[in-house]
Amino acid sequence: MLPESLRRVIHLLSRLPGVGEKTAQRFALHLAQSGDLSLVLANELAHLSEHLGSCEECDNLAERDTTGRALCGICRDQRRDRRTLCVVARVQDLMAIERSGAMRGRYHVLGRLLSPLDGIGPEDLPLDRIWTRIERDDVSEIIIATPPSVDGEATALFLARELRKRGREVTRIASGVPHGGDLEFADQITLGRAIEGRKQLR
Amino acid sequence: MLPESLRRVIHLLSRLPGVGEKTAQRFALHLAQSGDLSLVLANELAHLSEHLGSCEECDNLAERDTTGRALCGICRDQRRDRRTLCVVARVQDLMAIERSGAMRGRYHVLGRLLSPLDGIGPEDLPLDRIWTRIERDDVSEIIIATPPSVDGEATALFLARELRKRGREVTRIASGVPHGGDLEFADQITLGRAIEGRKQLR
Repeated sequence: MLPESLRRVIHLLSRLPGVGEKTAQRFALHLAQSGDLSLVLANELAHLSEHLGSCEECDNLAERDTTGRALCGICRDQRRDRRTLCVVARVQDLMAIERSGAMRGRYHVLGRLLSPLDGIGPEDLPLDRIWTRIERDDVSEIIIATPPSVDGEATALFLARELRKRGREVTRIASGVPHGGDLEFADQITLGRAIEGRKQLR
Repeated sequence: MLPESLRRVIHLLSRLPGVGEKTAQRFALHLAQSGDLSLVLANELAHLSEHLGSCEECDNLAERDTTGRALCGICRDQRRDRRTLCVVARVQDLMAIERSGAMRGRYHVLGRLLSPLDGIGPEDLPLDRIWTRIERDDVSEIIIATPPSVDGEATALFLARELRKRGREVTRIASGVPHGGDLEFADQITLGRAIEGRKQLR
């Protein structure tokens, strides 16, 4: 019953995270009935596809310049501390940390985590580029901000071992009860970590 | 901090219904990191913008043919009863009724409802085209399926009066659709019952 061109857009929109068939249909109908919104979005997505790439330094998202090179806003910012490097799994995680305003250094996006079950080993991580940056920028502290999951912890332990071999200080973001969170609803592992990671109050 | 091309896509995506800044950012990051999804979606949206129009018969969404004319799947389907016409406010409402399977006739999409507060009067409804269809197709029953809201009821009463002047039987979908509810989100059984339980307007 739906026009073919609309069905194809619905199918593609349903590939967005958390979007089912029904929501995709709502989006598509809105696009089909909102004047030139679909055309404007089409042009911007084509532009995105052509111009957005990975930062050649840290793998954050970055706009390509006219020569095709891409350097993200953080790596271009000379005020950012080169000697503190925060390693994250995904661009989304980098952005979440940036929003906290607590990180003055730079980042490296791994793009994936070690996962023996999925066949992802150390050779699949951009390790050479990290070692190169650490030497070149004389990085003194590496903050490992991979997620507190099985794969995230395994990756953190692996990186910490490799980085200590290279004589660097390695830290791990704290894991515990989230700010504003209710202890009653925290899971056991989170509470266990909150207890283990307790700090002396002075 | 975000690349400019990504920010523009986020801004456009946040215009989708029910999508805030944060969800739009999630969508945009997914698009930026999913290979050629953004380019494929760009092409399909451009195609949609170029080829999708309004059915010249009933104002349902319809694909334009090579001559630029658009006739929707329902109006093309000769098996659909021409003598029963269901008047709806929006394409979404037409689709919801189609899903119920209870409507064997054809539709007319008003595109808007009477709304004195918003300055929308009878002259803003496609009345001439409805009267023309009714005469040409010798329509015997008009089912008014505007939503059960203030504007929807006002529009239904207005249409019923005008249609009775033209000697037609006018029915209104039954209560069963919850008051103040949205046809788009009503379940199929509720909508089916609403069609079956329609009552004559006097």
